[in-house]
Amino acid sequence: MSEKLKVIDSDVHHSLRSDRDLLPYLADTWKDRVARAGLGLLYSGYYSPVGVGRQDAQPPGGGPAGSDPDFVVKQLLEPYNMEHAILTGNLFSVSVGHDPDFAAAIASAFNDYTIEHWLDKDPRFKGSLLVALQDPYLAAKEIDRLGSHPGIVQVVSSSASRMPLGQRFYHPIYEAAERNGLPVAIHPGAEGAGQANPPTAVGYPTWYIEWHTCLSTTFMAQLTSLICEGVFEKYPRLKVVLIEGGVSWLPHLMWRLDKNYTALRSQVPWLKKLPSDYIREHIYLTTQPIEEPSQFIHLKQIFEMFDAEHMLLYSSDYPHWDFDSPDHILKWLKPEQRRRIFYENAKQLYGL
Amino acid sequence: MSEKLKVIDSDVHHSLRSDRDLLPYLADTWKDRVARAGLGLLYSGYYSPVGVGRQDAQPPGGGPAGSDPDFVVKQLLEPYNMEHAILTGNLFSVSVGHDPDFAAAIASAFNDYTIEHWLDKDPRFKGSLLVALQDPYLAAKEIDRLGSHPGIVQVVSSSASRMPLGQRFYHPIYEAAERNGLPVAIHPGAEGAGQANPPTAVGYPTWYIEWHTCLSTTFMAQLTSLICEGVFEKYPRLKVVLIEGGVSWLPHLMWRLDKNYTALRSQVPWLKKLPSDYIREHIYLTTQPIEEPSQFIHLKQIFEMFDAEHMLLYSSDYPHWDFDSPDHILKWLKPEQRRRIFYENAKQLYGL
Repeated sequence: MSEKLKVIDSDVHHSLRSDRDLLPYLADTWKDRVARAGLGLLYSGYYSPVGVGRQDAQPPGGGPAGSDPDFVVKQLLEPYNMEHAILTGNLFSVSVGHDPDFAAAIASAFNDYTIEHWLDKDPRFKGSLLVALQDPYLAAKEIDRLGSHPGIVQVVSSSASRMPLGQRFYHPIYEAAERNGLPVAIHPGAEGAGQANPPTAVGYPTWYIEWHTCLSTTFMAQLTSLICEGVFEKYPRLKVVLIEGGVSWLPHLMWRLDKNYTALRSQVPWLKKLPSDYIREHIYLTTQPIEEPSQFIHLKQIFEMFDAEHMLLYSSDYPHWDFDSPDHILKWLKPEQRRRIFYENAKQLYGL
Repeated sequence: MSEKLKVIDSDVHHSLRSDRDLLPYLADTWKDRVARAGLGLLYSGYYSPVGVGRQDAQPPGGGPAGSDPDFVVKQLLEPYNMEHAILTGNLFSVSVGHDPDFAAAIASAFNDYTIEHWLDKDPRFKGSLLVALQDPYLAAKEIDRLGSHPGIVQVVSSSASRMPLGQRFYHPIYEAAERNGLPVAIHPGAEGAGQANPPTAVGYPTWYIEWHTCLSTTFMAQLTSLICEGVFEKYPRLKVVLIEGGVSWLPHLMWRLDKNYTALRSQVPWLKKLPSDYIREHIYLTTQPIEEPSQFIHLKQIFEMFDAEHMLLYSSDYPHWDFDSPDHILKWLKPEQRRRIFYENAKQLYGL
């Protein structure tokens, strides 16, 4: 036998037994983050120091907040006199993964789960059909598969996307939604994750507070695209619901779009009226998280700058940390406005 | 001699003699674009169908709009009773090229040109020192090189960037600006070009009308970053001027930031007051393009929601297509407000 070769291996990956093995070596401010969210935060996601769910929303029988229909009825629907709650789920990240087939499969499974465990159990729950954005033809197929279920009242997808949602790539989704008589809702959460665009127009901010603040800019860009690409001329019965994207930026965007349209309308010859007219006719916005200026009169003025009374839908964002109780927000509305925003607009839009 | 090898070459690039060779083969709507802006539009930039410059702003002696100081005096300063005009140039694209040294060289050359041909010729012109964002240490060097020139009143850079401008990478610029007693201005134009981030939080829109509308979202993201990263705690004498980014979005952003700060301030422990307080103390916004709601009272209300009287600086955007004449905008302001916004605020900020 020849002499044994001496070896130095220059790349061996040793491993923590658990992310928590790092805790003794971290200052308190980082400990909390690693203990609660793990090292996945190094490459993905923004960390909320207040968590995501309301601490009091964990079901008594266990499981994550929002996972027990009976407890949701008991903690949300009954105390607040809610005739219906529109379920939106929390899997918007289906739209930012790399595999379109896996994304569509998870969305379909979640929809089947929602129908079986929620909609078919309690008619007060109405469902949003989750679709993944990667393959709009698969999304359209899913809308046709379940869109006529009596408990399904809208299509929901991610406000985070690789490209602006008005672009023709996405039109099969709008066509299927219109065909099934369903509004299309978009919801934040996946901004900056997976293959989504960076979450702001200037790239990746550092903290969750910035990420959360700038979610409204996602909605401004999506709305601009939906209008300018002529989605509402092509699909005139389509309604779009902007969920959890803020409200008070809307007058600014309407004015800016209308002013630019006056000068630049040759670029969008398919538009037959002012951008703000399409917005008033086709767009709904949910209220949470409603802006809270120190003087409520300012929000009242903002509401008067667009047709808030007919365009807003009350939402709580249950069971998330920034829950808006119907007993605490928008108390200054006139009774008729309150009735519309907290009840009537959703009743009409969703045919309830 | 052996028989000659027969050859087929499978990749030979034939070339147009000029982009205009395509014109006979294009429908009118595309002809205009190619004739005016060329095929570079295929991979870069958004095409404005109304052009960029005012057609009447071309100097009688030739050259592009805005290139003749005497004509600028005659067409802009004299008729509108302008004591000073803050020159900002049009080379914001220095910040989005791939080579930091070339970018810094062009910025320096432009600054030397501006001093020689404009500032030293007519004291009514005041200059903005152009810096490129790729290498903030080179930018700081440029600020130290020319920051004390009596005609230089601020630093200007691009609102388009690879990452949010509050991040520590950029701090040498703020440190140098504060050291030289100069405000830092940011200006749109390079959004989505070169190595800048895509121009919206959802990627690249299709048309200039969308690109232009969404420029305000760049400013929201930059402002959020500047506040949350604590730039104004670190550089307490620094002022930042948001040029041509719109105005009416500001109340919305202040409310949203303040509300999030209340819940999430543990992420930004260096902040000692509400985000909106930093905004009021450190931020100025130029007026053009001022939003024009159909009812002026709405803009008046927006102005009352923040300290518009002290935070706005009149700007014309001369010689660009969307020029705002001082004789035509904001006529509804009270005389004292008008005096502040059209004159006094700039006089104080720039020490004129």
